[in-house]
Amino acid sequence: MTEPTVASPLSLPVVHLLPGHARRVRQGHPWVFSNEIAMDGGAKGLEPGTLVVIRDAGEEALAVATFNPHSLIAARILDRDPRAVIDEAWLAGRLARAVALRARLGNAPFDRLVHGEADGLPGLIVDRLGDVLAVQVNTAGMERLTPLLIPVLVEALAPSAIVLLNDTPARALEGLPQETRLAHGAVDGAVPVTENGFTYYADVLEGQKTGWFFDQRANRAFVAGLAAGETVLDVCTYAGGFGLLALARGARSALLVDRAAAGLELARRAAAGAGLDAGLTTETGEAFAVLERLAREGRRFGVVVCDPPAFAKSRKDQGAAAKGYRKMARLAAGLVKPGGFLFTASCSHHMPADRFFEETAHGLGQAGRSGRLLRAAGAGPDHPIHPALPESAYLKTLTWVLD
Amino acid sequence: MTEPTVASPLSLPVVHLLPGHARRVRQGHPWVFSNEIAMDGGAKGLEPGTLVVIRDAGEEALAVATFNPHSLIAARILDRDPRAVIDEAWLAGRLARAVALRARLGNAPFDRLVHGEADGLPGLIVDRLGDVLAVQVNTAGMERLTPLLIPVLVEALAPSAIVLLNDTPARALEGLPQETRLAHGAVDGAVPVTENGFTYYADVLEGQKTGWFFDQRANRAFVAGLAAGETVLDVCTYAGGFGLLALARGARSALLVDRAAAGLELARRAAAGAGLDAGLTTETGEAFAVLERLAREGRRFGVVVCDPPAFAKSRKDQGAAAKGYRKMARLAAGLVKPGGFLFTASCSHHMPADRFFEETAHGLGQAGRSGRLLRAAGAGPDHPIHPALPESAYLKTLTWVLD
Repeated sequence: MTEPTVASPLSLPVVHLLPGHARRVRQGHPWVFSNEIAMDGGAKGLEPGTLVVIRDAGEEALAVATFNPHSLIAARILDRDPRAVIDEAWLAGRLARAVALRARLGNAPFDRLVHGEADGLPGLIVDRLGDVLAVQVNTAGMERLTPLLIPVLVEALAPSAIVLLNDTPARALEGLPQETRLAHGAVDGAVPVTENGFTYYADVLEGQKTGWFFDQRANRAFVAGLAAGETVLDVCTYAGGFGLLALARGARSALLVDRAAAGLELARRAAAGAGLDAGLTTETGEAFAVLERLAREGRRFGVVVCDPPAFAKSRKDQGAAAKGYRKMARLAAGLVKPGGFLFTASCSHHMPADRFFEETAHGLGQAGRSGRLLRAAGAGPDHPIHPALPESAYLKTLTWVLD
Repeated sequence: MTEPTVASPLSLPVVHLLPGHARRVRQGHPWVFSNEIAMDGGAKGLEPGTLVVIRDAGEEALAVATFNPHSLIAARILDRDPRAVIDEAWLAGRLARAVALRARLGNAPFDRLVHGEADGLPGLIVDRLGDVLAVQVNTAGMERLTPLLIPVLVEALAPSAIVLLNDTPARALEGLPQETRLAHGAVDGAVPVTENGFTYYADVLEGQKTGWFFDQRANRAFVAGLAAGETVLDVCTYAGGFGLLALARGARSALLVDRAAAGLELARRAAAGAGLDAGLTTETGEAFAVLERLAREGRRFGVVVCDPPAFAKSRKDQGAAAKGYRKMARLAAGLVKPGGFLFTASCSHHMPADRFFEETAHGLGQAGRSGRLLRAAGAGPDHPIHPALPESAYLKTLTWVLD
């Protein structure tokens, strides 16, 4: 699994599509499903993650892909040029394109640098926390390319550290092990992350996901812009993303809540660094329990933020997740003072945007609160969407003003 | 029709809902459809726009509404308190709430101040171009309240002018005449509009809609942020919204295209005011014809913007409109240089967001261009959405980077 895989396309194994299934590939879709492939003995016997040439049911070569005979998404297309050689130069080219785009977006070096299929690198996530790179490898194909990728990242970006955070559920579907390890350099404690002009701290090795959630950057700025002079409640805050920026933009106070004490410790450190300790309170606790207790205490806030982890881990969870989002909206709305603001988010792939809107609106109604939606927004532009994969727009956020 | 309508709810006519139709009103929906109402002789004989009390099929009073027996949307709820007195003080209260929200949003006095149902004022649009108010009255109910509304607007905002731009198609459905007139003060030529730090000019009396499209404010800022050092093509520009801001943010050149010469004249005036004439070219022409000619000439731009008027005026136009958006994307994509950006917009109520995305992605494919979506965004937060009317989110915009 760790051998560098450089191969001329002439020497690559060939996988044939079943008749009538070449159209989507020709139109640029980056995936081929296992039931679209002629699963003969040769295909079935290929090692997960093998580089292959995709051909139609005849002999026309369509693309170079990585192949996993055991995955529902059997082939992930790397290049629509079937003669492409997938080597360090190819990876460097894709990386250079991602770097150039992020330079335009103006948040480097604190951003999502590589966002999978949309950046032409299926299965790969790279977040840039200054000179620390947090990397997720989610497919067997990208796992086999990792030994080529690390030196390419080092060469292009001269990072002080590259951390492989290979502990995602997606890896299980690809038959890959869970592991977190340093692939380059060293990380010395919490990493400073500057965003919207404020410096937070992130824990890359032990924190959530890649250590920082860059997807909420613009949403944090919008909510903080509403918070001057207000009291703020930030539930599932992790390391203070929304609440601390609100304090920095003039909020009177911020109560940060999270089930994990470690993130709150990072938040306190960032607040101290910015001289914002006076307005800050942190509390370790479960979101729903804390919301219910604050309601019993008759507390009201000018701004309430609820940014929970995904409630729906798969499609069959959608109903239960919908109830969860409705309940969250109901409880959180009850804590917003008249004229105040409510921000709710869903990062569940399996919760459609219109359903999240409906459930949230329903929750407001159950709380007896009228209001209006100011903003519906997803992840920031450093999380681009492949045109054939609109469903990869996982983040949905809603900002409401309540009467 | 022009008599001020101040009435105690005790003296208001009563309209009954049919059995089983009270639930939506109780949950806060702002509309009652004609087939939900007991259309007895009394209801049928009411003057369009009459203030009424809505009762359920029994005698429980649910709300105060305006009523139009000839409209599909027969009742528009003004207040869920059935004892509410709809007078100048009531209008002033709704206006004060709208003003307070816009103060938070930070763009006053250049913004949409009242956005219909979402601001608790069904049928009313108020745009604020500095001290000039551009007003649209779209329902018979709001038409009857207009004589009360004008002094309330004068008292609260001390405008130099209030212009009634009552020339919308929606008025025909309510049996209202088309008219544009000054209701207060005077307008002396083009009105300066400052947005994202740039001063444009708008023609309130003779321009498009209310004179300025505040809904694109944040989208203009995002696109202009991508344009430094680039050549920009801005098609259906009206008065230069996207192209001039791009020039102000460092674009090398901007070609503004519109079928109407008057808007282009306003754009040239704003460019001259900002010392940006050197980079500016304007062209009067039809969007598709100009896009096709530029392609024949082999022109390429770093940034292409297409922000056309609504293609779908009604639901039955959706198919034709979809083809139009696909064609627009295909033609525009062909003019984007490799690594450049394409912004496309649909302001058609009758074009769903997912369909607009699909057609645009399809158009890119037809142009042989791959790329990724950076941002999907609607109107800015001064165009709030009523929770029961998600379909009122009419504006869809997509920003792509193309390979």
